[in-house]
Parts: sequence; structure tokens; C-alpha cells
Amino acid sequence: MKTKVIGKGVPKIDSVAKATGEATYTVDMKLPRMLYGKILRSDHPHAKIRSIDISQAEALEGVHAVITAKDVPQNKFAFFQWQADKTILCEDKVRYVGDEVAAVAAVDEDTATKALELLVVDYEPLPAVFDPAEAMKPSAPLIHDKEKNVAFRVERLFGDPDKAFKECDHICEGDYVTDKVPHCCLEVSNTIAKWDPGPDGYLTIWVNSQAPHTQRQEVARILGIPRRQVRIINSVMGGGFGSKLVMDMKVPIAAILSRKTGRPVKIVNSRSEEFSTAKTRYGYRVYVKTGAKKDGRLWAREMRVVADNGAYNDKGPATLNFSSMMFATLYNIPHIKYEGMMVYTNKQMGTAFRGFGNPQCSFACESQLDELAARLGMDPLELRLLNANQPDQVTSCGSEITSCGMRECMEASAKAAGWKEKRKARRRLHGIGMANLVHTGGGGRFYGYNSAEAFIKLAEDGSVSLITSALDMGQGAHTVMAQIAAEELGVTTDAIQVISNDTAVTPYDLGSWGSRTTFMNGNAVLAAARDAKKEIIGVASEMMEVEPGQIVLEDGMVFARGAKDKYTLTEVADYAFNKRGRLLSGKGQYTNMLPPGLGIAEAFVKNIPTFAFGTQMAEVEIDEETGEVKVLKLVSANETGRTLNATLAEGQVEGMVVQGIGYALMEKMVLENGKVINDGFLDFKMPNIGDIPEIETVLVETHDPEGPFGAKGIGESGLVPTAAAIANAIYDACGVRVRELPIDPERLLEAIRG
Amino acid sequence: MKTKVIGKGVPKIDSVAKATGEATYTVDMKLPRMLYGKILRSDHPHAKIRSIDISQAEALEGVHAVITAKDVPQNKFAFFQWQADKTILCEDKVRYVGDEVAAVAAVDEDTATKALELLVVDYEPLPAVFDPAEAMKPSAPLIHDKEKNVAFRVERLFGDPDKAFKECDHICEGDYVTDKVPHCCLEVSNTIAKWDPGPDGYLTIWVNSQAPHTQRQEVARILGIPRRQVRIINSVMGGGFGSKLVMDMKVPIAAILSRKTGRPVKIVNSRSEEFSTAKTRYGYRVYVKTGAKKDGRLWAREMRVVADNGAYNDKGPATLNFSSMMFATLYNIPHIKYEGMMVYTNKQMGTAFRGFGNPQCSFACESQLDELAARLGMDPLELRLLNANQPDQVTSCGSEITSCGMRECMEASAKAAGWKEKRKARRRLHGIGMANLVHTGGGGRFYGYNSAEAFIKLAEDGSVSLITSALDMGQGAHTVMAQIAAEELGVTTDAIQVISNDTAVTPYDLGSWGSRTTFMNGNAVLAAARDAKKEIIGVASEMMEVEPGQIVLEDGMVFARGAKDKYTLTEVADYAFNKRGRLLSGKGQYTNMLPPGLGIAEAFVKNIPTFAFGTQMAEVEIDEETGEVKVLKLVSANETGRTLNATLAEGQVEGMVVQGIGYALMEKMVLENGKVINDGFLDFKMPNIGDIPEIETVLVETHDPEGPFGAKGIGESGLVPTAAAIANAIYDACGVRVRELPIDPERLLEAIRG
Repeated sequence: MKTKVIGKGVPKIDSVAKATGEATYTVDMKLPRMLYGKILRSDHPHAKIRSIDISQAEALEGVHAVITAKDVPQNKFAFFQWQADKTILCEDKVRYVGDEVAAVAAVDEDTATKALELLVVDYEPLPAVFDPAEAMKPSAPLIHDKEKNVAFRVERLFGDPDKAFKECDHICEGDYVTDKVPHCCLEVSNTIAKWDPGPDGYLTIWVNSQAPHTQRQEVARILGIPRRQVRIINSVMGGGFGSKLVMDMKVPIAAILSRKTGRPVKIVNSRSEEFSTAKTRYGYRVYVKTGAKKDGRLWAREMRVVADNGAYNDKGPATLNFSSMMFATLYNIPHIKYEGMMVYTNKQMGTAFRGFGNPQCSFACESQLDELAARLGMDPLELRLLNANQPDQVTSCGSEITSCGMRECMEASAKAAGWKEKRKARRRLHGIGMANLVHTGGGGRFYGYNSAEAFIKLAEDGSVSLITSALDMGQGAHTVMAQIAAEELGVTTDAIQVISNDTAVTPYDLGSWGSRTTFMNGNAVLAAARDAKKEIIGVASEMMEVEPGQIVLEDGMVFARGAKDKYTLTEVADYAFNKRGRLLSGKGQYTNMLPPGLGIAEAFVKNIPTFAFGTQMAEVEIDEETGEVKVLKLVSANETGRTLNATLAEGQVEGMVVQGIGYALMEKMVLENGKVINDGFLDFKMPNIGDIPEIETVLVETHDPEGPFGAKGIGESGLVPTAAAIANAIYDACGVRVRELPIDPERLLEAIRG
Repeated sequence: MKTKVIGKGVPKIDSVAKATGEATYTVDMKLPRMLYGKILRSDHPHAKIRSIDISQAEALEGVHAVITAKDVPQNKFAFFQWQADKTILCEDKVRYVGDEVAAVAAVDEDTATKALELLVVDYEPLPAVFDPAEAMKPSAPLIHDKEKNVAFRVERLFGDPDKAFKECDHICEGDYVTDKVPHCCLEVSNTIAKWDPGPDGYLTIWVNSQAPHTQRQEVARILGIPRRQVRIINSVMGGGFGSKLVMDMKVPIAAILSRKTGRPVKIVNSRSEEFSTAKTRYGYRVYVKTGAKKDGRLWAREMRVVADNGAYNDKGPATLNFSSMMFATLYNIPHIKYEGMMVYTNKQMGTAFRGFGNPQCSFACESQLDELAARLGMDPLELRLLNANQPDQVTSCGSEITSCGMRECMEASAKAAGWKEKRKARRRLHGIGMANLVHTGGGGRFYGYNSAEAFIKLAEDGSVSLITSALDMGQGAHTVMAQIAAEELGVTTDAIQVISNDTAVTPYDLGSWGSRTTFMNGNAVLAAARDAKKEIIGVASEMMEVEPGQIVLEDGMVFARGAKDKYTLTEVADYAFNKRGRLLSGKGQYTNMLPPGLGIAEAFVKNIPTFAFGTQMAEVEIDEETGEVKVLKLVSANETGRTLNATLAEGQVEGMVVQGIGYALMEKMVLENGKVINDGFLDFKMPNIGDIPEIETVLVETHDPEGPFGAKGIGESGLVPTAAAIANAIYDACGVRVRELPIDPERLLEAIRG
């Protein structure tokens, strides 16, 4: 399909405002009479609270409120209500260093900080456990009032793996370890709550949520008030990566402080708080076993995950579940077994993080596939091509693959990376490695419901407001939504104003996560634009006295095919307005539900509306003396379905690759007795400009039958295979297999020497 | 029609927030990096600007920008573009004390004020003219580069009045004078402008406009930028009364200061600025002549208006035109002649003010009708009943009267006021007087276009957002809109969140003025609610497996007639969401256009979609020594069509009556050489609590065929007849006819003594 706006590298519509610093983030906001809140957090990993003395803090001038557990509802919370285990403030026990114990609201931040220092908590320390394997032992201290520390367990079985392994000619098995890592958003977690007076007063919350509508439910749920009383407003976002998906306790804390003081209350994490108490990616210990026939066909695979939940559930179960889906779908293996366990520890919680359980398992699986290739004496690329998924295929685990560019991604990246030549070259301490990925390209249908809706409103001058719940975290979602509307309405993106920030205004939506925005919201925007276009054409048809079917919208003009007279969209809107007394608008919805009546196992496999594939190839050089790995070049071939905006897609991929390199080689939280000691950007090593290699991005277009203009989401996929590709390249360079992340100089040196 | 929410005295939905001070007005807002603007205004009523020296002001620390005429576009502006005569800042000449000459933006208000003091303007004073009659003389100084000071002239002729007057048995004629009065909103005029960087950067303006969408056009027009670049956001409003309808120059001034400084800029009128430079009600000198047959039938009427435009046009022509419509329609008089002239003077501008040219003319006409009654020896009530308009009647001037409660209003107020008894009693210095009114009950179709639109969005929990452009200035429009939606959806108003503040979000609308909100927006909201209801019923029909026609929405429940099972709206929304993958919404439009192809004269008479009638009766007591008039009781019978909310309707009427009493007896701007010297609430006398009599409001229901639930607007009508009713009561009390407002003690004493 020939397009005018779709496929163009349109710059982000908010780029000037962000580049000039004019963009207003929530942290920049100041409401009249606003107070500043601070949270007293536990400095014990595990302890009983004997008592809290708030008298001195309350007496401090400028302090408006001090709250402890007895001032807040004792409802429990997690992303899934049936997993709820965390209260707003700890009543009798703290479970990690950072757990919320009390909070204050004061006239300024200094006073609030001083008030925290005046709070006296009498703790009785309890034995703590930090390693999930330790926590599973019967002797381990129990973190919750439950029988054991295993919070959640998931099992999947397809085919007969036990029998199948016996039929294999080659089997590899091993343990692979990844640890918790933080999201490191440039914008720290923060909120402003304003609770209007009166029993039914609206609670308005400014918080940069990736899912304002579900956060509205969460806030209502934990506070025990009707959802309709809660309104969530998003400002400009400075990164999300999953960290801003599930409600943070500072939101209900700010709300209660606001209700108590009758004033708006703002709470902003310090960077140290962000590092040491905010949620992280889940750390996984993964046992994988892969069996193949002698020709290289993968025949059976088994995975056992022990995941570090941290002290509370948050998004743990969903993550573990998603891991199993991607594990089972990457290659079409007839026999699959998966067991995952999410285990409580006395550490900060895990949550969603770009890739959502997939990078951990992919590191394991795609590392092991190279081990298997070595065993088989096959080129890793050949092995993967042999086992690649095909379009229009139902895998043995039941995943319905529609469009699929897995083979094309491998071929394109091999070409771009010079795979064959470089594998042959066999230079000492210089290697090339690869890894594949599969990820959802359209979210997941976890709720039964999976829909999106959008409104389009033309003003009297034909200018367009697009009301969508697609959230822009910096990835450019608003730009892509504007492109979709602009394409359909035959205008440019600067004619479109995107409104997307307010649960009272924008339609209900699951939020921007799980690579669902382009696919789901994009389809809804497309539907709304088509509806508006129909109205425009209807009026233009009356105006020009031609059949609706003859009318075209293009380059900001409305005209009949073959006719000389062309009208601007403004003129048509003006005609509608002044001659027909009407405004033009559109309303669109896209639904992609799970079929009704599915059992859990069936629902599991039909959960993903479309899959996106990809391949990465990393070329590395190793310093034998220091153990340092230098990534020379990274080729990332990502399937986009159809590329809606190459500039933004490449930006996404580059960002993900850099995040993947950090995950592979550097990022490591150092804890002492449960306390993060590298709690700032000076001490926590993540990639800086000098660590970033040449990145070559190849966007592989396949055209998804359900995606808007054929597109699928690629907001997470580029992070998934990077660690394995680098680990495989290290093996290629020096014959050393490191099965634990990060592969930092210390660890690699040890492996080389060992 | 039986209703559950309509007709109930539902409290204003924002009453708690306002009563507790939690409501955030624009003046309360503070944006990051915001600067404070101040405007240097002329202190001459008429002068040439020889030069402006800005060097000292620019050099002052903390000053970020100083602008004069050369920094701003020289586009001219008025409400109607063909009347445009005012630039943003004066280039060569100032035309009234208060005319905008220069502006500054600084870090705080004090610095901005200091900077103003450092601006040196070299003026060459010109002769000034303050009285419209003087200004019409050939010798008068010309205020604009035009042939004369008459800015606009309107003539209307129906029948043959010259001949008809000869056929009359009785004729009264006389001059009646009213002066300019200020609106006295508690919230002064203020704005914040934020112009994003870049050539196409959005200009966002927070300003409490009664017509944000037309203000968007005005701002774009005067700045010479496309409308789509401008976004207007309203906060809570502290009164409008017409003063916040047409753009104030502080808006483009703040915009240009923002563009120049790259920061948001706030400008707030001081109270003194508000009194001495803001726009006012137009002062009218009205000559009226009324002729009747000996039986009391009104046969011919003529009016000549000379109106004080002030220095620029603003809303003058429209006001003059509206006066003629109401003059011609109040009674069905066969022969009518009207001439109006809007004359420039060197005084602050006039603009829209509740009643819009009707109170001035009504004071004249309804005073004169009592003079005629005396001449005829008829009771004023009898005379008015004899000449009353009837329902479903086309008047001689062509006004299409549909519903009409004129007779009922007279009868109801006579009963409530004890008219007959009190007229008979004839106590010395104690009198009762009456006056009738007609006003539009549904706006005017001035633009060809007269439409409104609304959206309704249900969230997944069934909570309702109503997106409407109905503006709440304090009159309770949001509450009434919520009632209309609630009634249709079978819920209570607290289930409805009203969104109404943002041109990028809410549909285009002409604004809240001209008594159009309840009628126009109410109809649009009703249409949107019906659309949403259809969707709800559609889903409920699937859910319950019954015919849609059987389903009822009532008391927050959705159920089939006769069935036992009832579902909450939340349950139905949840079913739609989880079982049908959809959200529920509605979109509604109401159009009431002028028929196409009308000539000016025809358009004139068809301009009003519905008329509202009313009667007031005032009982007064006069102090012969001091000249003071004490209003003992005021009965106001107002036709509501159908009363949607009696509490709010009564509140409107009471507010208007008080404003009418101020207009009748107190309010007077004292000018010296064009400068207002009573420029604060200490010096400007308006009614305070001690001046307010017993007010008895009678709401007369007629059921308008076009109004939502039969309603029409009553936001202005109660102010229209008050002055005449009081003047007639004064005449009844002491036999003295005062034909000039205000009838303050000085003027009355003079009349009594003269």
C-alpha cells in the first residue's frame, strides 16, 4: 500500500519541547498550597516493628501530617488481586530495606526530610534471606504468613518431553543465572495527589503511569473507594521500561497525606531511593535442557526457573507466565516442559521490565543453542535456520504464528554482520555470536479483554484532535499515532494534536507495555480516523455534488478523482460547520479478544495476537589481561511487520541494544545485608557513550494481517537476545562459556583463568 | 414527562471545592519558570504617542522582556472582524485611559511593576470627547481614522409606524438614560500564556473565557497564526457576566511575551485596573415613543438609541442589534421602528453584559408603558395583559414565538406580590411597580451556525465522563449538564464527571453566553446520552437476552421491564468490556441553524430559536428626606420552559435581581477627564447584603418544544426588567418619574424637589 506519512521518519512531535527543556514533567509541577511528602523506609531487610514514636516529628514546625499504618486502609495489593500481599504502610513487620513504614507531609522538602529523622521506630530484627534457593529451604525464615516462600508456581507441558529426550541424539543442559537490575529511568518515580474535600471528593493524581486506567483501578482498590472518584493525569514521561506500570505505594501515600492535610501533596524519589528501593527486573536462575536429533532438529526442551520475587508479588506471576510462552514459542519444538517458581526474598520487589521475563530465559536458551551447535558441529546460524518458525504456522505449544520474519531476520543480519566470513576468520580473542528472539508484537490478552479505543474531533477549522490512551514514554507513541491518523485523513502530523493523558478524558486502555501500543492503539486510531474520514467524505460529497466513492483525502486536500476543484480540509470543515451546522468527528475501537470459554492451557497459547521475531549478531574483542569485553559491532535485525516510522523504530532498537549490552556486561546491584550500596550513577555501572558500539539496525518488513498498516510492536524485542549474542561471541572469541550475567571483567577473567 | 434527576434541586457539583477554597483558579496556577507580565496603560484619554523609551526598563535586573507596538503584529481586532479597530498595543495614538501601550515580563510582580515605572512615554495630548451626543457633533475630535465617530448604525422597520402613530389615541414619548457599569466579577481578568518553542510551537493559553473556541479564533486572528497552533484551557471561573466573552488584549500580550522570553507568562489585572480599564455594559440614551388605541392596544412604537461605544468596537454592533430584536418582540405591536447608533468616545470599551442591550431598552420601554397606562387610566398590569404575547404566534416583526409564559408570569407575580391589594392601598411613599421582559431562551443564530456537540465516555466500571463545551462561570452549567446526562442514563449526577475546559479536548462551541448553554449544550448532551444509552441497551440486550425495547435504565440499574434480575450500570459496562471487548460511548450534536438563503431582515427575526418571558414586581419605600429607595420585596416570575434545577434557577434569578437593583439604584462609574476615580469596591457602590430585599422567585413552566426536557435558558432574563419595575414603583410611591439610571438618592431627591 502506497502511503504518504506511514513509513516516513517523521521526527517526534514533542522533540522541540523536550530538547529545549520546555516540556513540563510532573516533577516540574507546583500546585497551589502544595505540600511535600517523604517516606520513612525500613533500614532492616526483615524486622518486626515494635513501635513508632511520631511525636517529635509531628511537633516540628512546618509538618502538616505524619502517618503510619494505623492511618491507612490495610487492604493488600499486587498487580493481580489474588496475589495481593503488600499494604500501603507496614503495620507489624518490614520485609526489605526500603519497605514503607511511615510518611510525612511538610511545607518543603527540607522540613519533610528533617521530620523523617525525628521518627523513632523500634525494630526487632529478624533473620533475613536473600537468595531464592536459600529461601526455598525448609529452614529459611518465612517472609509472609504463608507456608513457604514460594509465592507462585507455573507449569506447562506440551507433547511428551520425558520420552522425547530419550529419542534425542544430543542433549545439552546447564544452569544460567541473571540477577536483578534497575530500570534507571532519567525521570524518577514521583507523584502529586490532590484529594478534594467532601466524602465523595475527587482524588486527582498526577503520576507518570504507563497504564493510567489500570492504575486508577489499583488506587481505588487499595484505598477502598469507587473507581469513579479517582482521576489519573499523566504529564510528559521521562522513561518507563516497565517500572511505571504497576502502582507505586507513594501514590496512595500521597493521596492519604492529601486527604489528611486538605492540600495537594507531592512525593519525589531521590536517586538513591530510586536505586535502593524501587522495583527491578526479576533475577532468574534457569536450568535448561535441550535435545536434538543428529541432523540438528530440536526435539525436546525443558526449563526450570527459580526467580527472585523480592519481598512482595507485584508483577511476578505474570512475568513467570510470559517467560514460559516465549520459551515455548521461539522455535517450534515438539516437546516442551516448563516449570517456574517465584520465590520471596528480603530484597526489593521485582516488576515489569522491557522484555518481561524473556531476556533472562533467552540468555539461557540461546546460549545453550550455541553449546548444542558446537556439540553437533554445526554453524549456529545453520542450526537456527533449520529450526526457524515459519509464517502461518501453529507451533507445537499452540502459538498461532501469522506473519513471521524469523528467517529473513537471520539472513539480513548475517549479511550485515558478515557472519560467514567472520566465523571463518577465527581471530584470537575476537569473536562473533548470534541469538534469536521472539516476543509479542501486539500485547497479550491477559484480561479476556484486549481492546483499545480512540476519538477524533475536528474543530471548525478542520484541525484535528486525536484523543487516544497511547502513552508516550519517550518511545514516540504519540508521533506514530499522529502518523496513522494523518495518513488516513490525508494530512501531515503537524495537523494533528494528540491528547493522551487523563483517565477522565481518554478512553479506557490497558496501557503502554507489552509491545501493545502500536498494534492495539494504532488499530483503534486507524478505526477512529476511518470513521472521521467517512464523515468528511459525506459532507464533501454534498459540497461537491459527487459520489462519496469518488472522494479522496490527500496532501491536506479533499477532492473528487479527476476533478479540477480541490478543497482544503479547512474548507470542508467550514462548509460542514456553516452550511450544515455540524462538526466532524470519529470514534474507533479495536478488539482482539481471547475466544470465550477457553481453559487456562488454551488461553495460554492463544494469548498473543501476533509475534515479532528478530536476530542479533555481536562482534566482540576480549582483553585477556583485564577480562574486559569490547563490543565492536552489533547488528540487530528486527521484524516490524511494517515500519511505520524508521527513525523511531531505529531509535527503539538502539536504545534496547544499549540496555542489552548493559545487562550483558555491566549492570550489577551490590547489596550488603539487603541494602544496595551502589545507589547512584557514579557507583552503578551502565553503558555510557564510550561503551556503545557501532549498531546496525535492519528493519525487516513482513506485513502483519492484523496490524495497523501491517505493523507490529517492537518496543521490547531488541533487548531480548543481546546478552546471549554477546555470550556466544565471547565463546567464539576465547572458547569460554560464561553462564551468569553480567559478564563483567572480574567474572570473565575468573572463567578464562578457571 | 416523569423525571428522576431533572427538576431536582441538585447542589452544584463543584460547591464543596469552591466553598473550601480548594478549587484552583487560573490566578492560583504557577507554571515552571513562569514570568509575570504587566501592561503599561495610557493615562491620557486621547493622545499621540511621540516616543517610548524602554531602555531603563530593559536594563532593570529581573526584567526578561519589554514590548511595544513594534514587537507585535499590527492586526486589528473586534468581535466581528469587519468592525476591527483595535491593535494589541497602541502604535501612534491612545484612545482611552487604560489603552495598552507597552508590556513587560519579569521574574516577579514587583519587578514588573517597577519596570513599568521606568518606561518613559512621550505623549502629545489631544482633545477628548466623553459624551456620545458630543462625539456625534461635526466639531468633535475624531477618535479613529474614520469620517465620523459613529461606529455602527442599525435600522429596523416593520409595518408603517409613521402612519400608525397618526392612528393612535394616546402617545407617550421621552428620553431614558443609562450609563456604563462594570461587571464586577470576583475573579479579575487574568491569563497565562505558554508558547512552545519552534516555528509551529503550540501556544497554550489558560484564560477564563466564556467562549474558549471562539477565543481561539480571535487569538489566532490577531497574532496571524493558524488556529490549530492555539489551545485555550479554562480553569474554574469566578464570574463572567459577559466580560469574559470577547478576547482581552492581555491574552495576545502574554503570548508575545512568552514567545519572546521562551517562558510562560502570567498577567493578572489589579482590581483598580479591572474597574478603570476593563470593558463595561454599554451606556444608552434611548428615545422612545409609544402609541396606543384608546382601549389600550399598543399600535406603534419607535426607538432611537445613541450608545456609548467607548474607544473601540468590541461587541458594540451585536449589542445594538440585539436591543432592536428584544424591543420589537416584547409585545406584539403592529408597527415598529428602531434606529441605533454606536458612537465612539474616549472611554473604556463596552462589551457583552448579562442582558446584552436589553436592560437599557427595557428600562425605557417598560417605564414608558406605565406612563401610558397612567395616560389611559389603566392598571399597568391590565395594560400589559391586554398586549401580552401568546404561544405559537409570529409577531408583527416576524419573531417566531413557540412556547410563551408571558401571561402566566404576570398572573403568578401579581399573586405573589399582592399586586391588586397593594396598588389599591396607595400608602404615601410606598409603592409597587412592575415590568415585563422578553429575552432569548436559546442563544442566537448569528453565525449561520448554531450548534453544540458532546461526547460521553463510559469507563470499564461504568463511570461516565461527559465531555461538553458548556462552561460553568458559577451559574451551575456543569451541574445541569450532568443532570441531563444522568437523567437519560438513569444514574445520579455524582456518577458523572464533567470535562469542559480545553479547546483541544471539548468540541467546538460558541460558548456560554446569550442564554444559550442550557438550550444548545443541553440538547447536545441529551443527544450524546441517548447515543450512549443505545449502546448500553444494545449490550444489555445481549447480556439479558431480551429485546432492546424492553430495557430500562433507572436508579443506576439496567433491567428489563417486568424482569426480576437487575444489573448495575457497572455490571453492564463490565460485561461489555470483558465479554464483548468493548467500551461504551456516545456522541451527540444539536443543530438549530438559520434556514439558508435568508436576507438580513429575515435573518434578524428568525435569529432567536426560542424566547423566554418574565415579569418582576418591586415594592419600594422612599425616604423623602434622603432620597433613598428601599426595595422591600421583589417578586420575579421567570419562564423556564421546564425547570431543570430549581435551586440553581432560583440562584440565577436572585443574582440577577441583585444585579438589577444595583443597576437601578446604585452603580455609577465616576470619571474625571476619562479616568475612573471610584476604582475599587470601597468607592464603587454596588448592593451588599443589607441592600437585598426579600426576593420571591416564581418559576413558570411552559415546556419548550425544542428545549432539552422542555427547558429554556434563564441566565440573563431576570436582570432585564428590574430597573423599570423599581422606577415604576417609585412613581407609584411618590408620583415622580425618573428617567435616568441609577436612581440614587441624589438624583431622586433632585427629582422630588424639582
